[in-house]
Amino acid sequence: MSGMPPRFYAPDLDAGGDTVVLNGDEAMHLTRVLRLSAGATVRVFNGRGLEREAVVGSVAKGEVTLKAGGRVGSARELSFHLTLVQSVLKGDAFDDIVRDATMLGVSAIQPVVAARSEIDAAAIERGRRLDRWRRIAISSAKQCRRAVVPEIRNPASFLSYVGAAFRRPDSDLPHSPSVAIMLIEPAADLAASRISDARRIAPQSAVEVFVGPEGGWSEAEIAQAEGTGATFVTLGDRTLRADAAALVALPVLLYAWGEL
Amino acid sequence: MSGMPPRFYAPDLDAGGDTVVLNGDEAMHLTRVLRLSAGATVRVFNGRGLEREAVVGSVAKGEVTLKAGGRVGSARELSFHLTLVQSVLKGDAFDDIVRDATMLGVSAIQPVVAARSEIDAAAIERGRRLDRWRRIAISSAKQCRRAVVPEIRNPASFLSYVGAAFRRPDSDLPHSPSVAIMLIEPAADLAASRISDARRIAPQSAVEVFVGPEGGWSEAEIAQAEGTGATFVTLGDRTLRADAAALVALPVLLYAWGEL
Repeated sequence: MSGMPPRFYAPDLDAGGDTVVLNGDEAMHLTRVLRLSAGATVRVFNGRGLEREAVVGSVAKGEVTLKAGGRVGSARELSFHLTLVQSVLKGDAFDDIVRDATMLGVSAIQPVVAARSEIDAAAIERGRRLDRWRRIAISSAKQCRRAVVPEIRNPASFLSYVGAAFRRPDSDLPHSPSVAIMLIEPAADLAASRISDARRIAPQSAVEVFVGPEGGWSEAEIAQAEGTGATFVTLGDRTLRADAAALVALPVLLYAWGEL
Repeated sequence: MSGMPPRFYAPDLDAGGDTVVLNGDEAMHLTRVLRLSAGATVRVFNGRGLEREAVVGSVAKGEVTLKAGGRVGSARELSFHLTLVQSVLKGDAFDDIVRDATMLGVSAIQPVVAARSEIDAAAIERGRRLDRWRRIAISSAKQCRRAVVPEIRNPASFLSYVGAAFRRPDSDLPHSPSVAIMLIEPAADLAASRISDARRIAPQSAVEVFVGPEGGWSEAEIAQAEGTGATFVTLGDRTLRADAAALVALPVLLYAWGEL
């Protein structure tokens, strides 16, 4: 829309090289969708925070070589590592969550199968969902000017995911949370903070937010999360769709922590 | 899910009467979907804030008569009148916005056709969208335990809507905003607050939030809104989908104002 040059994802891009090659979807996007040719000015980013100017050099079949230029700025990243641990959902609802969570700045998305999730790991496998979510994360990062593409992890059962995090005291492991926040229904009979108290939950270097399925978390899941020291949080009095919970909770937390 | 009795929308319900009648979708929901019969305990609400206990009396074809009992509590309402003035969107995206905005507590939704909206008033008419949105608002209020059903207003062009609000100094008119907040793209070359400053925008008795189409607002629309004294707000550095903007902005504003 604006005058911003188009952006392409080039995972091999580093700070030093003079050239970078696009292929697959990215080459297709440049040549077929945007119909750019030699001499066009674009930007390339490596998904790990580096973005550089680039000029289209040669365009061959399915492969575009670019001359890489100076480093440029991208959308600001959060000051902590934020993982969305989200129950898989039926239909395309998870697609939108990947898109929106990427735009909101998450570092990683961990799809989990909870006791009441409406689809299971086999259905995700059959639907080739993981590839699709990874493509969506790239496309969303391109669109929102982030130079970081969130990692979309392999789906895991929620209990085993949280159990593994709990058994490991080593907090350098990416999924050993410093702060874990579990969203629960207002009706759940638990001592929970309202999200209006989010300001009091200090973000650490790593934050995980657990969002459950439409039917809510099971008792075993809540107990397991409690064992990890998770903070229970409700989203106010009104019950939200499971599809919408992450999109409501993440901006509020980011706002409370001065990151929005 | 929980032990909460099912809730039905009965616009004729008042505080005094002994009986109330459901028909149409509500009678169908009670008899065909939930298969309730005489003696079942339910709740009825009138969409304007009143909710009462009720017991199913007679069930006739397409009509259910209930004996109305004592008044009961519902989900808390916001302490101000909140209108979401939202550009129409293609596909079913507006359906989700109606559902989610109802759950977030809006008092009214004003669909507007902006210069860059991808559908126009004729397409909304042909698709019988307005009826659909009104049914979704009722169904969402039932689900989230609100006793208020937000008004879904007739679609209007954004310019004429804002123009009308601007020309009328009488602030008692429902769409004469005390505070109007227009969400704009971070790229727009305007003096805008970041939403992180939302705390400083004091909510008045009526708040309107303007959310534009995928392509953003036109210059004329921005100028018109500026003329009404609207506050421009951006949602941070990252560009969000137009479908997601309201769902991100409303919770942040409600949180900032202590209403979440």
